[in-house]
Amino acid sequence: MSVTITPQSTSARIDIERVGDALLGRWKKERLESRRLAEDPRLHTIPGQPMAEHRERVLEQLGILVEEGAIQRAYPTDLGGSDNHGGNIAAFQELVLADPSLQIKSGVQWGLFGAAILHLGTRKHHERWLPDVMSLKLPGAFAMTEIGHGSDVASIGTTATYDPETEEFEIHTPFTGAWKEFLGNAALHGQAAVVFAQLITRGVNHGVHAFFVPIRTPDGEMLPGVGSEDDGVKGGLNGIDNGRLHFDHVRIPRENLLNRYGDVAADGTYSSAIESPGRRFFTMIGTLVQGRVSLDGSSVRAMQAALAIAIRYGSERRQFPGASGRETVLLDYGLHQRRLLPRLAQSYAMAFADERLLTVFDEVFSGARDTPENREDLETLAAALKPLSTWAALDTLQEVREACGGAGFMAKNRVTGLRADLDIYVTFEGDNNVLLQLVGKRLLTDYAEQFKGADRAALIKAAASQLGGRVSRFGLRQVGQSIFDLGQMARSVESLRSPEAQRELLADRVQTMISEIAMALREATKNTPKDDKRARAIAAEDAFNAQQHKLIAAARAHAELLQWEAFTEAVEQIDDEGSRQVLTWLRDLFGFGLIESNASWYLVNGRISGQRAEAVTAYIDRLIGRLRPHALDLVEAFGLSPELLRAEIATGIEGERQEEAHAYVEAQRAAGTWPMHEKDLYRAKKKAD
Amino acid sequence: MSVTITPQSTSARIDIERVGDALLGRWKKERLESRRLAEDPRLHTIPGQPMAEHRERVLEQLGILVEEGAIQRAYPTDLGGSDNHGGNIAAFQELVLADPSLQIKSGVQWGLFGAAILHLGTRKHHERWLPDVMSLKLPGAFAMTEIGHGSDVASIGTTATYDPETEEFEIHTPFTGAWKEFLGNAALHGQAAVVFAQLITRGVNHGVHAFFVPIRTPDGEMLPGVGSEDDGVKGGLNGIDNGRLHFDHVRIPRENLLNRYGDVAADGTYSSAIESPGRRFFTMIGTLVQGRVSLDGSSVRAMQAALAIAIRYGSERRQFPGASGRETVLLDYGLHQRRLLPRLAQSYAMAFADERLLTVFDEVFSGARDTPENREDLETLAAALKPLSTWAALDTLQEVREACGGAGFMAKNRVTGLRADLDIYVTFEGDNNVLLQLVGKRLLTDYAEQFKGADRAALIKAAASQLGGRVSRFGLRQVGQSIFDLGQMARSVESLRSPEAQRELLADRVQTMISEIAMALREATKNTPKDDKRARAIAAEDAFNAQQHKLIAAARAHAELLQWEAFTEAVEQIDDEGSRQVLTWLRDLFGFGLIESNASWYLVNGRISGQRAEAVTAYIDRLIGRLRPHALDLVEAFGLSPELLRAEIATGIEGERQEEAHAYVEAQRAAGTWPMHEKDLYRAKKKAD
Repeated sequence: MSVTITPQSTSARIDIERVGDALLGRWKKERLESRRLAEDPRLHTIPGQPMAEHRERVLEQLGILVEEGAIQRAYPTDLGGSDNHGGNIAAFQELVLADPSLQIKSGVQWGLFGAAILHLGTRKHHERWLPDVMSLKLPGAFAMTEIGHGSDVASIGTTATYDPETEEFEIHTPFTGAWKEFLGNAALHGQAAVVFAQLITRGVNHGVHAFFVPIRTPDGEMLPGVGSEDDGVKGGLNGIDNGRLHFDHVRIPRENLLNRYGDVAADGTYSSAIESPGRRFFTMIGTLVQGRVSLDGSSVRAMQAALAIAIRYGSERRQFPGASGRETVLLDYGLHQRRLLPRLAQSYAMAFADERLLTVFDEVFSGARDTPENREDLETLAAALKPLSTWAALDTLQEVREACGGAGFMAKNRVTGLRADLDIYVTFEGDNNVLLQLVGKRLLTDYAEQFKGADRAALIKAAASQLGGRVSRFGLRQVGQSIFDLGQMARSVESLRSPEAQRELLADRVQTMISEIAMALREATKNTPKDDKRARAIAAEDAFNAQQHKLIAAARAHAELLQWEAFTEAVEQIDDEGSRQVLTWLRDLFGFGLIESNASWYLVNGRISGQRAEAVTAYIDRLIGRLRPHALDLVEAFGLSPELLRAEIATGIEGERQEEAHAYVEAQRAAGTWPMHEKDLYRAKKKAD
Repeated sequence: MSVTITPQSTSARIDIERVGDALLGRWKKERLESRRLAEDPRLHTIPGQPMAEHRERVLEQLGILVEEGAIQRAYPTDLGGSDNHGGNIAAFQELVLADPSLQIKSGVQWGLFGAAILHLGTRKHHERWLPDVMSLKLPGAFAMTEIGHGSDVASIGTTATYDPETEEFEIHTPFTGAWKEFLGNAALHGQAAVVFAQLITRGVNHGVHAFFVPIRTPDGEMLPGVGSEDDGVKGGLNGIDNGRLHFDHVRIPRENLLNRYGDVAADGTYSSAIESPGRRFFTMIGTLVQGRVSLDGSSVRAMQAALAIAIRYGSERRQFPGASGRETVLLDYGLHQRRLLPRLAQSYAMAFADERLLTVFDEVFSGARDTPENREDLETLAAALKPLSTWAALDTLQEVREACGGAGFMAKNRVTGLRADLDIYVTFEGDNNVLLQLVGKRLLTDYAEQFKGADRAALIKAAASQLGGRVSRFGLRQVGQSIFDLGQMARSVESLRSPEAQRELLADRVQTMISEIAMALREATKNTPKDDKRARAIAAEDAFNAQQHKLIAAARAHAELLQWEAFTEAVEQIDDEGSRQVLTWLRDLFGFGLIESNASWYLVNGRISGQRAEAVTAYIDRLIGRLRPHALDLVEAFGLSPELLRAEIATGIEGERQEEAHAYVEAQRAAGTWPMHEKDLYRAKKKAD
């Protein structure tokens, strides 16, 4: 029998180590150090551990992180850190596989509470508090969110009113909605909090600033005027003592204002290097971007773990007799492949996109490229990627849970616990929809930039032609040629397979959606009298509201394009032909998957014909078949040890059970003790009749 | 200012009581009785309760159900029941709002263990065991699933070998994969189990039968030869003691065979009234359909609870300042409406579909219409509806969790607990994908029935014309006219709005998909030699595998059509114009939502033009705007009391907090103590410059 070897034969194999290195990226060393730590049983979740015990355990685990030197990286070298911002986040991301509660509680202590002192405070604050923050002698809370205000930080109700008589600020939560809420370390362990409040001095509200406020004695007694309530049991992350804090005219020294971006003199005079209050607010809030960067990569890691579990199990588990004579392996079912392989492709895209995000983060925070443009790029990229990866993690964990059946529901197989803990990742550190809306607004700004002063006719024309002008690194993409040409170019699936064509299709969609939204918003106020400000504001708000759903869809499409670009760039850099071939199929699966799931848009807008849409689906089916033999290699490249996965069904146990059952039946058959089945007798009888 | 009142003005209101009654349906009395019980704090989940305590609590709760006469309905009247099958399931569904662990453990005891004795056993078994089952004196497990076989029950490994010498069966699990797995009551409380095993007598395997096997003494000691392992912590339902059971040559009397459908005489002769072993197996398994019926309605109830919570909270919660001067209510945001209102429409469709399912179930199980056709219809309908409602419950609970932000993550707001518990509903009592595949196969059979003996040409022609022949109640739908005409008919959205047009579009999609799959399957074996059975089997299997994904999509589309039909029928029966108007919008939102989410199919297949696809989306936006003012009424009609919802954020607390904050600010403003904001000063200065 002769076998035709095509250029895309399955003889291509990935070089697991090389692909693994590409996934580990620039901070490989820190990631591996952190993984070794995450393998330590002392840091592992104990499923079903009661909340109170889990909270104490996680506090102890934080102590272990301190001992192991795991949390100091981002802090100043002279205070015991190593000014390694990218490496710090990379290492932090790996901790999700120890216990997400441990990860997030350490994030509260060192990534929020400590980082706020570092980034919003000045040298005196660093020297005074950071050593104790780092050593965990001073556990603290990050008191930004309020019961009444989550995503809209600018509108929080807590006030910090300056009293020049005593040179103190008075921290006050004047109504229930202003109580600080959902704060890790607030219910039990926090001794201080960085409290965000409206800074009021000399009768003027200078907007939100951060203050260092002691809240509890080391013995756990609340300080006068400070109240705390326990949030109790949550849907996950129950190792963290989330709670509320309220303040009744609590006085703190003037020096406790974290005054990097705004200060109050002894006499009450306010000063800031940033003149615009709006820009000042966003600069302060912008220093907190590392939470989003952290969650992005953590979600990717959880996704990888889930896929490694399901693909290993699916490669061993058999169900329903097949024509081959044995029961069929789950991963040989068309549906099972459709459930897992596109998600595997997505996890690769997201891993490479996170590496890019982390690089930009490090450039900005290390100071190597700390420009306003880069900060803006960083914020846009983080706001674009974090929603998609956190949602994808939940989606993948759930699909994996179901793909593993009842076994997926057992805590010992890990998946449900991760899903419960990661649930909140989609709404904290920025609600995903709110973040995508930010990205959408940024895209609208990019779009408008290109047409400053242009008239409506130019705008309409632009929708169907090439865009010019400056476009930022992670902002609106330019489409390389007229979309009308694109229709010509993409005559066949062959031509769609080129990376250029995939990119054009993805970029064109974002650009067209944004231009349509921009035009709809312009139209909205056209008929409102120019001098009726209120009417115009209401008309604009209504129009925006009507477009909100589309704007968020456009932002999501933009984020997908960024992921696709990161994946493509990473594939190009891999110096091994087999790996590049397989990863190219995987990238194509990701790209074509995006086109397939948005096929109706491409069809309605005349970008692809119905025939080509069907060809896209058929090509996806072919890619999936081609990738099936590489599935195990592709999860092996994640480099996740059994100690990190800790899922019984991913240990080979199912394969052993299958072999045991098979051997039993074969032995019975050989011995002639395997009973005939009535079905066969019945069939034979029917035939004879 | 004049307001134009259109015929579809928002002046239409639903009659909450009448709509509520329609939702409660035929078994209103039983549902209300069960809700009163579910309001009892003794039956409520305690979030965070450790597993061991929760298990004991749930066992006690089962005792309360017995005392309250809540579980006897389905059992024979002369044994203390009331032969009320529909009412029993209706009441059971409501228990999900007490505690899903309680619900499912009671389902194990009375809906599986007890029901298997009832439906697979005969009078002697009923008299001997059912009184103790009903009184909970005899807690039992339902031992069907094995570690190695979940969905494929026919292939289980446990054997029951008859020994005519002693007139006993020997129950044996010959390898680890044959151990019974995930069984409620197996780890701790079960004293007996209904064990499914291959019945072997006189050297012939007669297939899977059920046996009554004692496993534990009342004191909790395992009986000789029986072993048990605890499944430990799970992703949810931790009030149930799931575990494994294994049997080492355990002997039980011949009479313990539940012999309604197959019996073994003392000498080992096997007999059955059902000649075909395949049909016999499906008849036995078919008696267990009530689990699916139960989960369908339970999922709807959980969905309703989630929507009631999110819509009440979203109607009070404000975030981000709006042009009106106050912060905007969440439910006034376009995106928030898009997230919740289509799911509200879906919950109505699913509630009405469940009522229909329950009616067919009652017809069959009461004996009123117990025909093979009705049993088949019942199984198809249950297999179609249960997957969609259980998935929709998870989807809705998650969207609601996120729509409530951090508050949604707090156990006291109920949503995460329900989601964790209901997770397993999508893979137990039939894995959702396996069930949909069954439906798909049934649709293929229906399709083939119509063309028995027809040639390929007729098949192809049929794809584009009306179908004839007998079609069962819940099988493949006929399309009323040529699909080519449909294109003509649906010239505008106006014409699409008629129920007939919606139905045609939905039914046509199912029929076309099924006919395409049927043709692809036919093509597959065309070139394989007729006499090479193995080659044909492999070719057929490969072809089926390639179509599996599409077949499941077709089955899903079919289920959606059934839901749409149930919704439409229910709306037509409501005798109140305002209610009918609002519910018609809601039904349209459901129908158009299905068309929108499958727009690419309709476009590729030329059923709608690109322009019409955009009009569908625009109409959905209009419907959502129209339904917004009715959102609270529509969840009020669910009739879920605060004791059933038990979600702090659904109690009005957020409205109170918003008012408190608003009043504080207004008072400060009135007193002249509200500080100016630097932003305003900055703007004024900029203007002056």
